[in-house]
Amino acid sequence: MKIRIISKFKIENKFTKEAMKEYEKRLGPYCKIEFKQSKDPAKEISEKSYVIKIDPNGESLASEEFAGKIDKMRSTSDIIILIGETENVNIDYKISISKMDFPLDSIVVILYEQIYRSFRILTNSPYHK
Amino acid sequence: MKIRIISKFKIENKFTKEAMKEYEKRLGPYCKIEFKQSKDPAKEISEKSYVIKIDPNGESLASEEFAGKIDKMRSTSDIIILIGETENVNIDYKISISKMDFPLDSIVVILYEQIYRSFRILTNSPYHK
Repeated sequence: MKIRIISKFKIENKFTKEAMKEYEKRLGPYCKIEFKQSKDPAKEISEKSYVIKIDPNGESLASEEFAGKIDKMRSTSDIIILIGETENVNIDYKISISKMDFPLDSIVVILYEQIYRSFRILTNSPYHK
Repeated sequence: MKIRIISKFKIENKFTKEAMKEYEKRLGPYCKIEFKQSKDPAKEISEKSYVIKIDPNGESLASEEFAGKIDKMRSTSDIIILIGETENVNIDYKISISKMDFPLDSIVVILYEQIYRSFRILTNSPYHK
């Protein structure tokens, strides 16, 4: 299972990069995850990709429901999570995290953490590393 | 205006403390803000305190609505935001950030960022520092 989080914009803060590094380490046993800044996210997507968009009009999921979604996607090798506006992309599923607007940095850390939390839920493991 | 975010638990990650330091700096011109770990949050509260609780059953606010809430509280000198279970406390207002469960660290960074965002909205300032 490989998850790529893609945005046109770049991660702004050093503390965000530190958080990502920590969660990448914790996620090591479960999946490959990376953040990629791309001028044209559509180019990163293949026919096999399952494309999720973070969207204020998307579905609001509890963490357990998000974990269920991750569970269903386990056999999908290429999962893409798009943050921000993107043209010419077929979206498979939209998720809303909050009614509040968050900066890219926060959304990325929230996603890393929720994906880590999902695997801890799915493997019946205690939350902390 | 002074805002204290109070929880029984402590901030876990160094990257969270870095994020808080950055937002405290950015918030300097607007308000005093601090995070306090307290064994007994009720003891931190006085009769003058306005008490907000982060609660899954609270109101979901868009960032502009949250800014409106901050605006109304500007003359309140002691604002308390409680995270996690607390006994013997009168809650004035409950806010839900997301249907997802977030760790304390994430909730604190989200609050610092949303409070900063609120002041940028209220002062018609561009978002970035």
